[in-house]
Amino acid sequence: MKIKVAVLGLGSVGRGILEMVRRKPGLGIVITAVADSKSGIVNNEGIDIEGVLERKKNGCACGDQGITARDVVLQADYDILVEVTPTNADTGEPAFSHMKAAIERGKHVVTSNKGPVSRHLAGLKKMAQGKGVRVRYEATVGGAIPIMHMLGEGLRGNNVTALYGVLNGTCNFILTRMAAEGLTYEQALAEARELGYAEADPTYDVKGIDAAIKLVILANTIWNNQVTLGDVDITGIDLLTTDALRLAEEQDCTIRLIAEALPEKGLLRVSPRLIRKDHPLVFEGTLNAISIQTDMAGEITLIGKGAGSIETASAVIGDILSIDL
Amino acid sequence: MKIKVAVLGLGSVGRGILEMVRRKPGLGIVITAVADSKSGIVNNEGIDIEGVLERKKNGCACGDQGITARDVVLQADYDILVEVTPTNADTGEPAFSHMKAAIERGKHVVTSNKGPVSRHLAGLKKMAQGKGVRVRYEATVGGAIPIMHMLGEGLRGNNVTALYGVLNGTCNFILTRMAAEGLTYEQALAEARELGYAEADPTYDVKGIDAAIKLVILANTIWNNQVTLGDVDITGIDLLTTDALRLAEEQDCTIRLIAEALPEKGLLRVSPRLIRKDHPLVFEGTLNAISIQTDMAGEITLIGKGAGSIETASAVIGDILSIDL
Repeated sequence: MKIKVAVLGLGSVGRGILEMVRRKPGLGIVITAVADSKSGIVNNEGIDIEGVLERKKNGCACGDQGITARDVVLQADYDILVEVTPTNADTGEPAFSHMKAAIERGKHVVTSNKGPVSRHLAGLKKMAQGKGVRVRYEATVGGAIPIMHMLGEGLRGNNVTALYGVLNGTCNFILTRMAAEGLTYEQALAEARELGYAEADPTYDVKGIDAAIKLVILANTIWNNQVTLGDVDITGIDLLTTDALRLAEEQDCTIRLIAEALPEKGLLRVSPRLIRKDHPLVFEGTLNAISIQTDMAGEITLIGKGAGSIETASAVIGDILSIDL
Repeated sequence: MKIKVAVLGLGSVGRGILEMVRRKPGLGIVITAVADSKSGIVNNEGIDIEGVLERKKNGCACGDQGITARDVVLQADYDILVEVTPTNADTGEPAFSHMKAAIERGKHVVTSNKGPVSRHLAGLKKMAQGKGVRVRYEATVGGAIPIMHMLGEGLRGNNVTALYGVLNGTCNFILTRMAAEGLTYEQALAEARELGYAEADPTYDVKGIDAAIKLVILANTIWNNQVTLGDVDITGIDLLTTDALRLAEEQDCTIRLIAEALPEKGLLRVSPRLIRKDHPLVFEGTLNAISIQTDMAGEITLIGKGAGSIETASAVIGDILSIDL
């Protein structure tokens, strides 16, 4: 049986998904519709993926400008809506409305979109439960790292008592470069921009907001406790000095932006922390890592790529394949 | 609905499972039968776990000496047979016969027993498929690390192209101590024995055989390629000198016993390797770690406790809960 998928959003993640579905026919996934911000295309037998990727490469609309994302959500024939439009952390829109409309139609939803998931997870799950469908969001946290599968399946039966993560690759890269080369924050940020690791406006990353949004998603997944971004105590890395990193180095330590959740203490925090260099959460470059403390399995740490087109597509495809149709 | 489980083997792992089932009634697991090497006990409503644990603590048989493990397998009322008797790496017996008999009765099997799984995985899976039941063996590799769940669920859709692991905590402890304190192999082994990290006869661990058996299980799981222990090129750590570790240290490296599988090169090897100290597979003490290289997700590394009563029970319980009855 083929899995019919509609994809909203043809940025880096959406294109990665299309590319993988094209390269791996064995997955059994058919893309029956896609939409970008300007157009849409629908074909119940499967759209022409190569044609779409070619048009996007040339900077064109993906399909028919008379078809909108909303048309795809409401009218196309699909089993699973894949929502991978850009994140709006303030409102979660328009992704949230699209996801609600798909669930209303009895469709499963898979998303990489942190906005609606960090703001509305409990509501989305409740709605989905009412309709007998699933909402999965592996790609919202830790890129390619299958942390949600680990929590939901691999560690089933365990109580998670604490969580520590390096959830923002941009910050980890900047801190790595400041420590290794004695660069200032501004110099390391400029280098990250040149290499494409930092956005033109890096505020969300360097102020710790991106990591905090991911922490909210993790906390609400593990403890069902409906926290919001306002509950996280956030300090970024933008005020760190080269001196601070040098002093850490002298004690065989370094500084990393650590996201931590300790539910017993009511603590949710993202902040630069002094950490021993041989700790599993210390590594170089743009990787992500998550350590979970549990009552039976002890501490389990996962390390992997936190971003990237194909890497994030891997998480989305893992979610698609884990839904029983 | 309750999950009815029969447990064979009341060593450290079996007792850990009983303890966790007792402490966590929310799991919905009922132990309807257990057997140790001398006796057995059956109660379709659930055995008296505390009584069994108390008798084992006092060095007594767990139950009725007229009831054998085979009686439990063939006659008790259970959904899942949990086979956690000691490993016999040469024959896989008597565990293999017990598992076959349970599958023949249409029962699922969960095991921590490396012997039968490393020798007979393909056969067991085929037999189970024929009967519409599952064979799960998360606890055979990496203790508490849910590597099998990661491969089967979290990374679904990915092709695994290579695997590197630190699969033996005893060796990792010995190498850590040799590097940190300049101990000889014999001194570090003596320390491991004192702390309970090494057996009286440490041959299986220090010769690399234990790691190789786990590598065989991983390779056959990932690539379905029916390799055996004889296909693994094995070198242990017992001939390593303090000088070798000192020389590694001078280059910011250390030595670790690495198990690796590179199917494209037909390579299956366990050997002491020179490795940079900032590599994710370098950590101190008895932890285990596994790095998987994949075509979409890139490299994913998992680190966790490789042994322990409750930790291994965690893997067994995760398997029990993931079987759809």
